[in-house]
Amino acid sequence: MRSPLFEAVPNFSEGQDTTKISRIREAVRAVPGVRVLGLHSDPDHNRSVLTFAGEEDPVLSGAVALAKACAADLDLASQSGEHPRMGVLDVLPLVPLEGATMDDAVRLANRVGEALGFLGFPVFLYGSAATASHRRALPDVRRGGYEGLASRIEDPLWKPDHGPYTLDPHRGAVAVGARPFLVAFNAYLDTHDVEVARAVARRVRESGGGLPAVRALGFGVGGRAQVSMNLTDLEQTPIPVALEAVRSASADHGATVESTELVGLAPLEAILETARYYLGLRELDAHHVLESRLYGSSDPRSL
Amino acid sequence: MRSPLFEAVPNFSEGQDTTKISRIREAVRAVPGVRVLGLHSDPDHNRSVLTFAGEEDPVLSGAVALAKACAADLDLASQSGEHPRMGVLDVLPLVPLEGATMDDAVRLANRVGEALGFLGFPVFLYGSAATASHRRALPDVRRGGYEGLASRIEDPLWKPDHGPYTLDPHRGAVAVGARPFLVAFNAYLDTHDVEVARAVARRVRESGGGLPAVRALGFGVGGRAQVSMNLTDLEQTPIPVALEAVRSASADHGATVESTELVGLAPLEAILETARYYLGLRELDAHHVLESRLYGSSDPRSL
Repeated sequence: MRSPLFEAVPNFSEGQDTTKISRIREAVRAVPGVRVLGLHSDPDHNRSVLTFAGEEDPVLSGAVALAKACAADLDLASQSGEHPRMGVLDVLPLVPLEGATMDDAVRLANRVGEALGFLGFPVFLYGSAATASHRRALPDVRRGGYEGLASRIEDPLWKPDHGPYTLDPHRGAVAVGARPFLVAFNAYLDTHDVEVARAVARRVRESGGGLPAVRALGFGVGGRAQVSMNLTDLEQTPIPVALEAVRSASADHGATVESTELVGLAPLEAILETARYYLGLRELDAHHVLESRLYGSSDPRSL
Repeated sequence: MRSPLFEAVPNFSEGQDTTKISRIREAVRAVPGVRVLGLHSDPDHNRSVLTFAGEEDPVLSGAVALAKACAADLDLASQSGEHPRMGVLDVLPLVPLEGATMDDAVRLANRVGEALGFLGFPVFLYGSAATASHRRALPDVRRGGYEGLASRIEDPLWKPDHGPYTLDPHRGAVAVGARPFLVAFNAYLDTHDVEVARAVARRVRESGGGLPAVRALGFGVGGRAQVSMNLTDLEQTPIPVALEAVRSASADHGATVESTELVGLAPLEAILETARYYLGLRELDAHHVLESRLYGSSDPRSL
């Protein structure tokens, strides 16, 4: 049996200086047992998203190495960008992967929060790791960015969970959370009318009374209307269910889905569920996938 | 970069004696670098299908260990069953997996054939490893089973490719081949009328002018008409294309597909192609699958 695995998807406040960005990524990559899965830097927002994974202790060590590298290389006081940020290491969500539960991710978030607190970062736990309901939603935690946080850190409701109760203007604070795996899935319509995409997005998203665990927005991308979705809980709304809702809502506007795209990674289970859904396959799991059997953790002793 | 991987799917002539079957399986499992993926024993046919995989040299060693174990434990002269068989180790197809080409599998089949020849088995190469076109199709090679082979082994057209030119009645001969990965996929219709399944099978299979690389038969299984398919080349006909053909042909008989099943293993690519097909996903490969990134061979240095 393999040990439980976790993914960390930290956002840090540098999206332009490739030397600094590389140095920060290398600090994480150097941690034994950590696998860096992706790095996406956005110069306009002047921030980067790093994705790494591993077992609990390596991910904890990776988070510590990351926080030290951000503190050493970045300075919030001289940083600016479109995206509201509250720290050099801004947000650090921890996601349970194979063999791990949300409780495991919450425990890891607490360990990471404690360690970052020792390093001198004020730490706010959010998501499933939040210690109060008003601190659960990330937008609430980082409302107003560094400046907003500075104005309320004296408020007992906004006392950091770990670390100092004061803000260092150079490194700021960090939000450490636990959340489910998130799939970013976009549908392109056969129209350039962004209003159609917006109307479809309003219909399918949870906040509009649509599908649970679906966030959606309409955009114009490359001359095509795009319905951009975040699926935050695939057990509640898997990819095919989201897509069929988009297809149906689009049809009501005389549009069809021309193509789709997956941004970033999806768990194997999401792909298997898609095959089950459309093929009418009653049973299909990772054990049916050759590569999972070749590299997976299953013990074939019973065969 | 991982080394090329191969799968071996040997059929041996024992499906009843579980002690002997276990001993034969354990002989293969004991080979370092070999992973046993499955074992299916059929008492009626009195034969077993073992699936194992690994890199080239371990699979070669696994085949040798298997042949020795079959020769030690099984006796064709005292064996009987419904299935025509020509040897204790009857058929040994080799399948290219990740990183391997059909040419690689042909080379491995030749190495396996040579080794089994040294062990005293007359070896007939078939499939992509065949040395003459009339020996390419497995049914032609084993026509008439042991008795049929005994009657033609003196014929220069049926000279073994490796090993002795005479048949030992206790161990018989073995067919060693190279072939693509085969997916066994069944569709259950909402009718108990087997004739509908047979008519659908005739429409979709290659031999009836249907889809390339599709073999299909109609059966009655558990009170339901079943279209049982072997997809022998997923690049020519992927799973969703085969299913849509079955759905369309069934509709012409007033039937619909109630559910489907995958028998045995499918490569990850087959599942990805299914998702691409139904989601309209232009780009989806193993790099989008979290588990592939966690355990895969790809070097994330470029990230």
